[in-house]
Amino acid sequence: MLTAEGRSSYNIYMLKKLRVFTPGPTPLLPSAMLAMAGADLHHRTADFRALFLKVLEDLRVFIGTKNDCVIFTSSGTGAMEAAVCNLTSPGDKVVVVTAGKFGERWKSLTTAFGCSVTLAEAPYGKTVPLDAIAAKLTSDTRALFVQATESSTGARHDVASIAKLLHEKCPDALLIVDAITGIGTTALDVDGWGIDVIIGGSQKAVMIPPGLAWCAVSEKAWLRMESAKNPRFYFDLRKERKNAKNGESAYTPGIALLVALNAAFDYIKAMGNGDLATGRNELIHNAETCAAMSRDACVALGLKLFAPGAPASAVTSVLSPEGVDSGEIVKGVRTQFGAIISNGQGEMKGQLFRLAHLGYFDYMDTIATIAALEQVLAKIGKPGHFEFGVGVKAAQECYARLASKK
Amino acid sequence: MLTAEGRSSYNIYMLKKLRVFTPGPTPLLPSAMLAMAGADLHHRTADFRALFLKVLEDLRVFIGTKNDCVIFTSSGTGAMEAAVCNLTSPGDKVVVVTAGKFGERWKSLTTAFGCSVTLAEAPYGKTVPLDAIAAKLTSDTRALFVQATESSTGARHDVASIAKLLHEKCPDALLIVDAITGIGTTALDVDGWGIDVIIGGSQKAVMIPPGLAWCAVSEKAWLRMESAKNPRFYFDLRKERKNAKNGESAYTPGIALLVALNAAFDYIKAMGNGDLATGRNELIHNAETCAAMSRDACVALGLKLFAPGAPASAVTSVLSPEGVDSGEIVKGVRTQFGAIISNGQGEMKGQLFRLAHLGYFDYMDTIATIAALEQVLAKIGKPGHFEFGVGVKAAQECYARLASKK
Repeated sequence: MLTAEGRSSYNIYMLKKLRVFTPGPTPLLPSAMLAMAGADLHHRTADFRALFLKVLEDLRVFIGTKNDCVIFTSSGTGAMEAAVCNLTSPGDKVVVVTAGKFGERWKSLTTAFGCSVTLAEAPYGKTVPLDAIAAKLTSDTRALFVQATESSTGARHDVASIAKLLHEKCPDALLIVDAITGIGTTALDVDGWGIDVIIGGSQKAVMIPPGLAWCAVSEKAWLRMESAKNPRFYFDLRKERKNAKNGESAYTPGIALLVALNAAFDYIKAMGNGDLATGRNELIHNAETCAAMSRDACVALGLKLFAPGAPASAVTSVLSPEGVDSGEIVKGVRTQFGAIISNGQGEMKGQLFRLAHLGYFDYMDTIATIAALEQVLAKIGKPGHFEFGVGVKAAQECYARLASKK
Repeated sequence: MLTAEGRSSYNIYMLKKLRVFTPGPTPLLPSAMLAMAGADLHHRTADFRALFLKVLEDLRVFIGTKNDCVIFTSSGTGAMEAAVCNLTSPGDKVVVVTAGKFGERWKSLTTAFGCSVTLAEAPYGKTVPLDAIAAKLTSDTRALFVQATESSTGARHDVASIAKLLHEKCPDALLIVDAITGIGTTALDVDGWGIDVIIGGSQKAVMIPPGLAWCAVSEKAWLRMESAKNPRFYFDLRKERKNAKNGESAYTPGIALLVALNAAFDYIKAMGNGDLATGRNELIHNAETCAAMSRDACVALGLKLFAPGAPASAVTSVLSPEGVDSGEIVKGVRTQFGAIISNGQGEMKGQLFRLAHLGYFDYMDTIATIAALEQVLAKIGKPGHFEFGVGVKAAQECYARLASKK
């Protein structure tokens, strides 16, 4: 979109194409956007039902599960709320694993629905150690809520081990995983690990605008719903599941976004030479490669990674050099080069910036972002401190190393 | 969208352009769809904030209120749920006025959130008489829920009189009006009548795809929220209001649809020579004209209107001729002429069909639909019963009569 802001920062010597390089919304897939612009379709027709059934089946493959999927017209938070209001009753003991802003959202949501919430916490940038989680689990823990990747910090939780721990200590408890930035950026063996609810959203790895959220729900979770007592209507999972069998949604769906999602799945399928699961794995590999290049570049530039212990491939959080507000870096990249990268969230605002890799990012984007970052840092920082090309070179070397492995 | 179905019913002698002529989704505004396809915008930027603040201000004018507006990324039902979960506590006595499928939705929603629900009912096709509503109001009625226009039947409630009655008998009760198909099709004096919550959605008179819902909320309702005890998180009105002051939404918004909505408001503003309220009135006048033409045409064809007593301008419900399943008519219009009109909803499926007028419909659409209807009825019905052109002529006469008045 040509924006007023774009025009006002226009430099006659150099174009600044607007690039949304954030961990959500992510860059938009052109073929999906064009499909969306022509989405004149009614939702109670055979055309729509065929589209919706195909999208639901593709979604199952994309998430990598045999469980039934449900799509809501909402932000990702809507699907998070669905997991809470469909699966808990007031007073239920639940454990929330939190190490960032989205962990805090699980806390707020479960509290809003009257759960008795125990936190297993770690500071921003860390992950919650397994023994700290184990210490909070009790025989009457009904559910555990966690992020696969905490987008606010760029840390990745070890969902496989958390699942194992939970199933051993609390076999009846449900495992609910916010994988909004995890799906399509990290391998998640949903059924093998026993994830009861896994949650995703449209403005992430699938490269389309925000407005759809989804989850895949295990049989154990469907059963829990029979007795869960919190009120739900719009986010009623069982109602949506029932309607989805016939290719419909309970309420008027975000038709245009579903058309876009269908086009995006076709694109990912093409990445996998006709196989969507293979394409999804390539997409994960792509994010991992962009992330590895970015990490190496930042380290070469003498910058500190914020979550070096367990870095996610969705997004890399980088600490701002001492004495520099990260907002200044974000602003510099944007006003000089037109690319929007993200500041820290929550308590980390001003202290770090985030480079995104999920969805429609490629080698060229990654290299260009690193170069822009060098340019901005050189202008802000002490002279000579940020030598041009040092980060780019490290990223190139990383790419060559990874490419030779494949 | 070129669909498989479109292709399979292709007739080499005549094109069948796909036309979504339903009361929601409604026909899409091309300029809004093109804007949407280019909606690469991040929601935590000055560009977005400027857009969102403009859209919120335009929305206020479009709805015709001084009250603060909130936009959710959801179907219209989401905003209905917001009215219930933000404004009621379990056990609250509420009155639901119901005369169709969407009245029943108020019943389901208020029941899901634990209200003590009293129904003021009328059969499908009728409106609930004022004295029947009065009989259900008690001194401890906390809220009344009603549809401005019941889209499932095409009937219009007399909201002004219901408001007067409620304010006289229960001065503390809140008046909550689902105007999802009412806004932009019928005059609603929100502040003058004292509507505490009025609800609308994107796939209706504003001519864009589904995925956004909104409401305007009175000070009295904001105050009630302070003490209302039902759980809410995603649909938390106060949180959205607070964020909206800064041009933001609490959760990632349906950015592409907001860009489309902005373009649609620009179009409606242009209808009013730069004034959005005037444009909205023209849009209402447009729907009224299409509706009057359609009613006259149906009557001239010997068809019975389903809600002749209080017809809405959003949609006209027409009873199928005796012995004819209305699905056959809907199917005929679609397969022969590519236009999707609606069947009856709920218990009226098979008994009536619905002609829509809300949003991006014009004279040409209305006339063409009537002609197509004649063509289909002639094929289905007894020979000679449906003479070609009788309905069209009546619509033309209606138009000429109304045009001469203006």
